[in-house]
Amino acid sequence: MRAVVLVRPKAGILDPQGEAVESSLRQLGFTVGETRVGKVIDLEVAADSPSAARAEIERMCERLLANPLIESYEIELEEDE
Amino acid sequence: MRAVVLVRPKAGILDPQGEAVESSLRQLGFTVGETRVGKVIDLEVAADSPSAARAEIERMCERLLANPLIESYEIELEEDE
Repeated sequence: MRAVVLVRPKAGILDPQGEAVESSLRQLGFTVGETRVGKVIDLEVAADSPSAARAEIERMCERLLANPLIESYEIELEEDE
Repeated sequence: MRAVVLVRPKAGILDPQGEAVESSLRQLGFTVGETRVGKVIDLEVAADSPSAARAEIERMCERLLANPLIESYEIELEEDE
């Protein structure tokens, strides 16, 4: 089952990459508000059901993919595969 | 208008970060298939319509957010704001 995991800096946590992108966009003449940069992880996981896949990916997030102190994560399963 | 931009390495393009994540997940005992890592950019753009917002963000992607040689991008507008 394929999944998309979005890992973002939590609200209130400093995001220097987001600040750099925001500042560069403004220098290029774009009008943008707050910009935040995180990671998107596309992966394929073997699981019998969507709920088992989600639980397995939550464990991956807690152990490796996200730093729970400063990042939040969101899991989207592609159910049609 | 808020938007989410997903920037991913194109198919066939080497993704060392994805390979590192895949290998680390396996070392932790997870069973995963191909893993790819890209960026998620959350930003706020001033535009009169969703189509104008999308066109503006496409320009941002082409000028700064994505490297069109090796990355593809996807724009999701949050229309309810």
